[in-house]
Amino acid sequence: MNVPTQHACDSQMRVGPAYDGTMKALVLEAGSLRFEADRPEATVPDGSTRVQVTQAGICETDLQLVKGYMGFAGVLGHEFVGVAESGPLAGQRVVGEINCVCETCDLCQRGFQNHCVNRTVIGILNHDGAFADSLVVPDINLHRVPDDMTDDFATLVEPVAAALQIPEQVDLGPNSKAMVLGDGRLGNLCAQVLRNCGCRVVVIGKHPSKLNRFIKQDFETIVLSDVQPDRSADVVVDCTGSESGLSLALQLVRPRGTVVMKTTVAGHHDLSLAAIVIDEIQLIGSRCGPFDKAITAIQDRQFDLTDFISARYALRQYQEAFEHARSPNALKVVFDITQS
Amino acid sequence: MNVPTQHACDSQMRVGPAYDGTMKALVLEAGSLRFEADRPEATVPDGSTRVQVTQAGICETDLQLVKGYMGFAGVLGHEFVGVAESGPLAGQRVVGEINCVCETCDLCQRGFQNHCVNRTVIGILNHDGAFADSLVVPDINLHRVPDDMTDDFATLVEPVAAALQIPEQVDLGPNSKAMVLGDGRLGNLCAQVLRNCGCRVVVIGKHPSKLNRFIKQDFETIVLSDVQPDRSADVVVDCTGSESGLSLALQLVRPRGTVVMKTTVAGHHDLSLAAIVIDEIQLIGSRCGPFDKAITAIQDRQFDLTDFISARYALRQYQEAFEHARSPNALKVVFDITQS
Repeated sequence: MNVPTQHACDSQMRVGPAYDGTMKALVLEAGSLRFEADRPEATVPDGSTRVQVTQAGICETDLQLVKGYMGFAGVLGHEFVGVAESGPLAGQRVVGEINCVCETCDLCQRGFQNHCVNRTVIGILNHDGAFADSLVVPDINLHRVPDDMTDDFATLVEPVAAALQIPEQVDLGPNSKAMVLGDGRLGNLCAQVLRNCGCRVVVIGKHPSKLNRFIKQDFETIVLSDVQPDRSADVVVDCTGSESGLSLALQLVRPRGTVVMKTTVAGHHDLSLAAIVIDEIQLIGSRCGPFDKAITAIQDRQFDLTDFISARYALRQYQEAFEHARSPNALKVVFDITQS
Repeated sequence: MNVPTQHACDSQMRVGPAYDGTMKALVLEAGSLRFEADRPEATVPDGSTRVQVTQAGICETDLQLVKGYMGFAGVLGHEFVGVAESGPLAGQRVVGEINCVCETCDLCQRGFQNHCVNRTVIGILNHDGAFADSLVVPDINLHRVPDDMTDDFATLVEPVAAALQIPEQVDLGPNSKAMVLGDGRLGNLCAQVLRNCGCRVVVIGKHPSKLNRFIKQDFETIVLSDVQPDRSADVVVDCTGSESGLSLALQLVRPRGTVVMKTTVAGHHDLSLAAIVIDEIQLIGSRCGPFDKAITAIQDRQFDLTDFISARYALRQYQEAFEHARSPNALKVVFDITQS
């Protein structure tokens, strides 16, 4: 494990290996990960740009993909910062939205581009991802990273945007009582978003050691085993990535309240749903969020992201990195792609 | 079976059996229904009124209650019209909201009276219902029935209100594509509400014979076996009362669309819920609705309720009546309580 550091703008000065048509990459195939030292780089279609990746974060979704979720095969990774090789942002540090869309289908035309029926999704669906020297990204997906934002913070734009999707979908009245289920990376960002929206936030987690981080951030916390299902929460955000998350959420939310499902779970749920009707509960799925707002919020220090990067690894240390990302106390584990 | 008739205001002239402290009633206990000829009438607390029931409808919920849903024991029936014996509406024809609330708990104070934590629910939860000569109803639950509204139409106020709850909860843009699952009583009322809101409505049902009614009402219909899950609906309303309804709804709704769960199902669902997150679907439970709006809407002929009453029975014919209500082609089966 390498000691986390914060290095702003390093990538603008990066002198990587010359582009020679191949790259190192972390590839998922048939449920197993492998490091490839000489994977051919993808060609760049019109309207897209090759991004030389500087750093990329491991997300809960990556852990699920390795378990078989979505049946993805290809280069993993969708949280990244890098340098655009060409296009309108050539030479600039960039982050990229993950949904690559057609702009012509009915859903695109109606403003739901993230749900484009023809989309590919970087590192998730039919589109090679960012755990590699480079990846190809549509120009319209790219956002310039402000000069004074570190690569570490830039790597967190994607998950911060995902957390910021909650207020895009749910009306969070001031002083709403919000409960966050899950004491991990996404739970932390969601808890911060809810507090920034004026909610009184309670975080419920399995691990007292992980809850300590929340306590330091002045969040009220409850260890899962001590939870009383008193049905008092106006909104419950499920960030557990676990089948039991939704059942617990339905025991915590008040009648006419809202449950936000923030994490996908592969497989089937066995649930009693009568309470949803009787108590007129709103259940809402929430996925990707607004990058522009995330960049602004991070720059304005609306988020406490101190020590949010738990560790950084070279790409070929992927086994150690994934093991670390799976460990209870890890927050964000990243690949430093500049390391050989 | 008696031939349906429409009789306005009959009950205002009704000369029923004199009140003698007992009544005939249809009682559910330990999963079985029985007719009682001499059940003691409940006492009337301050702020409540005894209502002499004229007519009461059998609802899908009643069929579920008989199957054990909610574990209810007592007099069934929650869709009724009758005459108030006392209180502010003494001598008037009335209908009654079914949630009897405390007005003091947190949920009542916040305007969610229908979700009062201390509530009883007429004919459903700890409160004897309307399949009887009389029942006791809080004064605040009662609504006067306009003189020109028939008893048949008044009996339909409760289910019409339930259908009108949908636009109270969901923003239905003009020209939204709405699909209604279920070709029964509630499906019909929901389809009419959605059309009145400007939606293009498609009704999906199992029974071609039941869909004929919708076709006569100029609805587009699809027989269940012909449904293509093309994920094109902006909103899907599940009125099936069946476990498979929600799964189908999730295959029909578009990304960022809304599924309204209008019927309760006892037992557990086995569901894949990943689509809710990936497609950011909103799932919303919907129960009781606004009586005042229902009365106005019925009076303004916003609903086609022609022949909506399929049959009327005396209370002691309850076995025949329930069997009829369970049959595929029945719409609303009612008890004419004035029949001995």
